[in-house]
Amino acid sequence: MNQSVVIAPLGESLSGFLSSFQYSKVVVVVDNNTKKHCYPALKAVLPRHSVVTVLPGESQKTLATCEKIWAILTKEELDRHALVINLGGGVIGDMGGFCAAVYKRGIDFIQVPTTLLSQVDASVGGKLGIDFQGFKNHLGVFNIPKSVLIDPKFLSTLPERELRSGFAEVIKHCLIADKEKWEEIRYKDFEEQNWEDLISHSVKIKQRVVEQDPTEKGVRKILNFGHTLGHAVETCFLNKPAGQRLFHGEAIAVGMIMESYLSFARKMIDQQTLTNIEEFLFATYGKVAIKPDDVEKIISLTRQDKKNKGKEVRFSLLNGAGQCAYDIVVTASEMRKSIAYYLG
Amino acid sequence: MNQSVVIAPLGESLSGFLSSFQYSKVVVVVDNNTKKHCYPALKAVLPRHSVVTVLPGESQKTLATCEKIWAILTKEELDRHALVINLGGGVIGDMGGFCAAVYKRGIDFIQVPTTLLSQVDASVGGKLGIDFQGFKNHLGVFNIPKSVLIDPKFLSTLPERELRSGFAEVIKHCLIADKEKWEEIRYKDFEEQNWEDLISHSVKIKQRVVEQDPTEKGVRKILNFGHTLGHAVETCFLNKPAGQRLFHGEAIAVGMIMESYLSFARKMIDQQTLTNIEEFLFATYGKVAIKPDDVEKIISLTRQDKKNKGKEVRFSLLNGAGQCAYDIVVTASEMRKSIAYYLG
Repeated sequence: MNQSVVIAPLGESLSGFLSSFQYSKVVVVVDNNTKKHCYPALKAVLPRHSVVTVLPGESQKTLATCEKIWAILTKEELDRHALVINLGGGVIGDMGGFCAAVYKRGIDFIQVPTTLLSQVDASVGGKLGIDFQGFKNHLGVFNIPKSVLIDPKFLSTLPERELRSGFAEVIKHCLIADKEKWEEIRYKDFEEQNWEDLISHSVKIKQRVVEQDPTEKGVRKILNFGHTLGHAVETCFLNKPAGQRLFHGEAIAVGMIMESYLSFARKMIDQQTLTNIEEFLFATYGKVAIKPDDVEKIISLTRQDKKNKGKEVRFSLLNGAGQCAYDIVVTASEMRKSIAYYLG
Repeated sequence: MNQSVVIAPLGESLSGFLSSFQYSKVVVVVDNNTKKHCYPALKAVLPRHSVVTVLPGESQKTLATCEKIWAILTKEELDRHALVINLGGGVIGDMGGFCAAVYKRGIDFIQVPTTLLSQVDASVGGKLGIDFQGFKNHLGVFNIPKSVLIDPKFLSTLPERELRSGFAEVIKHCLIADKEKWEEIRYKDFEEQNWEDLISHSVKIKQRVVEQDPTEKGVRKILNFGHTLGHAVETCFLNKPAGQRLFHGEAIAVGMIMESYLSFARKMIDQQTLTNIEEFLFATYGKVAIKPDDVEKIISLTRQDKKNKGKEVRFSLLNGAGQCAYDIVVTASEMRKSIAYYLG
């Protein structure tokens, strides 16, 4: 589980990569957005290849889209010595990686993440997958890309809301593993953050954790801080009108406040730490309007979390700023309190 | 890649297995045939569990059936600590294993193979998958079952044609790896073979090969002897009227004769060895009527073989009886000759 991650201009990193491998064919997977904004930069440095374009967005991260991708790989007669390049955010990386990992029982793929979220999180760690029946990443595999090529220049192609969403995972990495960095970022406004530095910081933390526990039997679960209730909130909002839907990081910010409250209620962090976290997250993300009707839905959705065992819902909770514990069983009544706390 | 295989009455092997693990839930995957003929024996020794029943046959080994299985695992709220038991032949093992390996990025599963074919071949080695757009095992992963429980008693539930089909893989294992055993079996009629002995012999050979090369980068390819043309013949016959369709082993027997001819044409085996092989296989399986129209279709289908590189079609060919070489590039014109030789 030694994952290669290169943070550099794409021209450099890609030539370096291709010079050490011989592929029979290369296929690039993009969505309409990355095809327009990012593919020209890739095309300029990539020899002969084909392109698969899918529609953008989490709603496309389904078996139906995979079938389309597999049909094209088959039509192109890709053999086991071919390469898939996933150029895009988390959806493209997770789904394109899954398609490559399953096609003919697995062919090589590399991730070229184009969003902050995928640069600091999704592209590192080998988690691949798609949604199924509304459950996030319900189908998938663990499989390591041959390389992850991160070009921070792609961030300039992002809408601000997308960049802000990715920042939530940066905040999470600081909260679970680096108190000093947390103290550094929380005194800066969103606009003042140094993205190149934060990408490299987040990637290092994630790699360190994943190397210790590639398949999430233990310590890797700390990366799920904010994600048990966060994913449930995200899923709950998937069925709302488009204008109310949440970006992943926005939902995780909600989850981090709720789960910081749970950490506080369990006396794992003190009042001041809780206050610091919620003030920073509310200032950065505002407050999401969760309706009374949604509360039980959110609690019920946590039962599908992949970290659970039997009927127990298990959380990763902060153990002081910069530290995190996992496999902590939390009851529905505690969750209800944490949602009420969030709603103030 | 240390795969546990237990050859014993199912009552014994299953209690042994379950006593060393704690599962949150157990789901058994069967088809209508194994539900009727094999499930009662399993049910008698298995604590509380659910059952997923699918239609029997290779034509069901599709994404659509997987979706049904995944929907049931989801509805049953299976978590990552659950167990899937695949009770059936190769289709159930390959597809149920694939579903387990992909559900929530992989939960434990065990294989309880009920056909000779799956006992001596499919259940060992970690190859999982389904067919896609008519291509065999086109989607899949490598993943090792927690255990393979082989009960030779299930063979008595099989139609004779099914048993004979499985015998082809036994013959293959002898031809590629054990000259002495080949000389032993070829002097016996089908009815005189000792199945318990042959199962154990085949499993040992397959395990030895797979341990050396789990993901088929090298020596594992020898297990594909007979399968390059064999799979192509099998796929070609998939579209024929039901009465003309071939069982897997029947197609592999055809492939083994054709590929023995290729081995002979390359001077890798002598005339006598070729004669011995074809006489035994024709005596056991008869001759399949391949129409002139099918020849180019079969040759074209070999281009989708997973062992190929670029436009080259690569074979595993005998290097004397009991030995096998791999990555041998064979041209369409040589294949044409081998098919003509088969048809005599």
